[in-house]
Amino acid sequence: QVALTSERYGLRRLPFSQLTHSDLAFFERLMPGRVVTDPEELKLFNVDWLKSVRGCSKLMLKPQTTAEVSQVLRYCYERNLAVNPQGGNTGLVGGSVPVFDEIILSTALMNRIISFDKVSGILVCQAGCILEKLNEYLEQQGFIVPLDLGAKGSCHIGGNVATNAGGLRLLRYGSLRGTVLGLEVVLADGSALDCLASLRKDNTGYDLKQLFIGSEGTLGVITAVSILCPQKPKAVNLAFLGCQSFAKVLETFTTCRAMLGEILSAYEFMDEKCMELVERHLNLSNPVTGSPFYVLIETSGSNSTHDEEKLNNFLEKSMASGLVTDGTVATDDKKIKACNLMLWSLRERITEALTHDGYVYKYDLSLPVAKLYELVTDMRARLGQSAKNVVGYGHLGDGNLHLNITAESYSHSLLDAIEPFVYEWTARHSGSISAEHGLGFKKKQFIQYSKPSEAILLMQRFKAMLDPKGILNPYKVLPSS
Amino acid sequence: QVALTSERYGLRRLPFSQLTHSDLAFFERLMPGRVVTDPEELKLFNVDWLKSVRGCSKLMLKPQTTAEVSQVLRYCYERNLAVNPQGGNTGLVGGSVPVFDEIILSTALMNRIISFDKVSGILVCQAGCILEKLNEYLEQQGFIVPLDLGAKGSCHIGGNVATNAGGLRLLRYGSLRGTVLGLEVVLADGSALDCLASLRKDNTGYDLKQLFIGSEGTLGVITAVSILCPQKPKAVNLAFLGCQSFAKVLETFTTCRAMLGEILSAYEFMDEKCMELVERHLNLSNPVTGSPFYVLIETSGSNSTHDEEKLNNFLEKSMASGLVTDGTVATDDKKIKACNLMLWSLRERITEALTHDGYVYKYDLSLPVAKLYELVTDMRARLGQSAKNVVGYGHLGDGNLHLNITAESYSHSLLDAIEPFVYEWTARHSGSISAEHGLGFKKKQFIQYSKPSEAILLMQRFKAMLDPKGILNPYKVLPSS
Repeated sequence: QVALTSERYGLRRLPFSQLTHSDLAFFERLMPGRVVTDPEELKLFNVDWLKSVRGCSKLMLKPQTTAEVSQVLRYCYERNLAVNPQGGNTGLVGGSVPVFDEIILSTALMNRIISFDKVSGILVCQAGCILEKLNEYLEQQGFIVPLDLGAKGSCHIGGNVATNAGGLRLLRYGSLRGTVLGLEVVLADGSALDCLASLRKDNTGYDLKQLFIGSEGTLGVITAVSILCPQKPKAVNLAFLGCQSFAKVLETFTTCRAMLGEILSAYEFMDEKCMELVERHLNLSNPVTGSPFYVLIETSGSNSTHDEEKLNNFLEKSMASGLVTDGTVATDDKKIKACNLMLWSLRERITEALTHDGYVYKYDLSLPVAKLYELVTDMRARLGQSAKNVVGYGHLGDGNLHLNITAESYSHSLLDAIEPFVYEWTARHSGSISAEHGLGFKKKQFIQYSKPSEAILLMQRFKAMLDPKGILNPYKVLPSS
Repeated sequence: QVALTSERYGLRRLPFSQLTHSDLAFFERLMPGRVVTDPEELKLFNVDWLKSVRGCSKLMLKPQTTAEVSQVLRYCYERNLAVNPQGGNTGLVGGSVPVFDEIILSTALMNRIISFDKVSGILVCQAGCILEKLNEYLEQQGFIVPLDLGAKGSCHIGGNVATNAGGLRLLRYGSLRGTVLGLEVVLADGSALDCLASLRKDNTGYDLKQLFIGSEGTLGVITAVSILCPQKPKAVNLAFLGCQSFAKVLETFTTCRAMLGEILSAYEFMDEKCMELVERHLNLSNPVTGSPFYVLIETSGSNSTHDEEKLNNFLEKSMASGLVTDGTVATDDKKIKACNLMLWSLRERITEALTHDGYVYKYDLSLPVAKLYELVTDMRARLGQSAKNVVGYGHLGDGNLHLNITAESYSHSLLDAIEPFVYEWTARHSGSISAEHGLGFKKKQFIQYSKPSEAILLMQRFKAMLDPKGILNPYKVLPSS
């Protein structure tokens, strides 16, 4: 049983109203059969995927339309009831579950594709569409979602946008700030804001939608998304390589960027500890062994002959110059699709393997690439025997390190040894204490390590303007004043 | 002599303070020798590049540092003096010049490159750096700015960001919303907001910088920019093609996107009227003649052999199938660099050619690609002999049409025949009335054709929050209430 967040952190509930029978009756009339009050059913939605935080919500609502979301929020705003918007509940910073008894507003039934235009590649859909389902739909039309991440089988596109998810394709297709073309959002008072344009370019006034991208449900509830999707690449090739040092991982990246250029679509690295855990806990086998570092390179292009030639030239050069000591390649062919999946699993399932290793302290940092791994080494030396494992992996091409520390169970003293050290280290190197996971509940009090006080103040003013009663995802993102 | 904007439009000056001798003395103490009051020198900065609007500012200030911008704004805020931030003054909607006697705050002397990191490709520089100069600097290091536009020789990067400029490379490198990583901004009251992170990913709180991108100087003055720059492509190829109909222009685009894939970096179209004007007014010669439509295709890639092969395959196919009737190709080689420049000139200098044709009514619209040219035809039919020329060109790959109408001189009645017809037409097809030029002074009253009233209201609330006295670039972007 996961400890209640409010108890573990000794928090006091803000003076929101308590849910009454007449509230329940209202919601039941509004959306009959889509009002969940069964404590057993609610359990799953009160705890995060990492099983690290737990709320005690007594109510989950499952609207199907924007109008319903609007009515729910208008009612909650008037009644001063706190609301926790929830997508696939795959967040890693405790932003997607209640802290106390906030009403869970789930987008699970808002999973309709509204339109897709094959000429422009613009998809418009409801917020609750599951990322992997969207991608499958698009692949049939010769396109893909510009976003991919390990949680794709459960996460919702609305949640992806609300948290400004990064993931595996960012290196190639850029961030959601560029690819999201429009949003429909319901504000705290229930008013709907329609910025659902499906235009690649639109310079008519301030870009309001950007404020909601990455606001983690604290400024409004995203109900629909318009997103620019790239063409499905005709050829995808993978290479899984072993490097003898982190310096060689970096040099390989520079070589690879120069030689693969526009077809490079992922450059992921992981240390040998990651591989050990994936092999031990998930029974996956690593085709390349005996290296302290591993690199997964993906190319996506429009001409398989050209792409393979580029990849082979790169591999020859990096092998010959000793940058890479061992490697395996999977070129795009149906026979080897399995091999392809297997290689990606080694990288994508690290998060899962870590949860089998015990309680996980997760850090998701942006750092200058050259400094990226130094933090892992420093942390390992600092913690010594008090941690079970200290591992580093991530999107090297984006300067994004996932630093993870495991222990048999949660302990305050281990946490004190890690924090604020990890944040101070990051701030010293002008990094970000949350590259892609967001702040949610668990990182909000550390925002000042990455943002000046003037910026935080301005954020608080935006929050106060858009949600004056503070009912939307309270206790998250911004530090309590 | 261009008519005074305030007189042509019958506007009333808002009750800002009038400039006094003691104000001038303050500024002269603050930045000696960088305070311009000479009416002759000021003329150039009071009129826009198109010579379509004119203000009567009596003062231009040329700060060199953020601290100076801060002191200027703090003073103006206290004194209630209106301020018109100005970059290269290349805007096309009257946003960059004063409407009345606003103080011109020029970024011309803020042209220092602060840092460039060759591993990540991240450039940090002051707002007044000229786009072309930045690109030359980056090219020496093997990189380019992710943005290119006709005005590159004069426009400032700060102005580009403030107006969310689009331009010729957007198809390939995406919008500034994705590539701008950080901004330093001075707010109306003089306080500086440091969001100048140089990280590819940073999810710590709301992305404040996005509010200033495209706000056209109405929410704050951008003083420094951090921007992600792509590697300089090793091979650049151009093709200039003639098509017999707009339908073929569209079909050629689809074919080209499929066959050129990741190396396609521009797909520009122009009609024969454009070519006529460029040939007549600028003496440029078009190597491909006798077609009602022309297309300029650019590829940028990392392997010239592969790129040429892709381009040739595409050309063979489009010629054989009759999509393209004539064409010329320039592949990347020093000998033909001149040819390359010439082909780009045909496209880039259309704006200039138009100004030689008379008074220009400019429209910059986002439309569904399939509908793009219908508006030009409709407009031509509607205006008949009352217009001199009605031409269409633009970034077809982005769904962006530049519709331009010329006449011997400005006339109210011609304007009435064009507007609001052009905006109604655009709104009917769910387009944007300003794809990349912004709203500035000339389009602000039409914002409701592209944005719902809730969104406009919210924009006004942001403006009131960040600039309660309304001193920053008044009379621009938002409709007068």
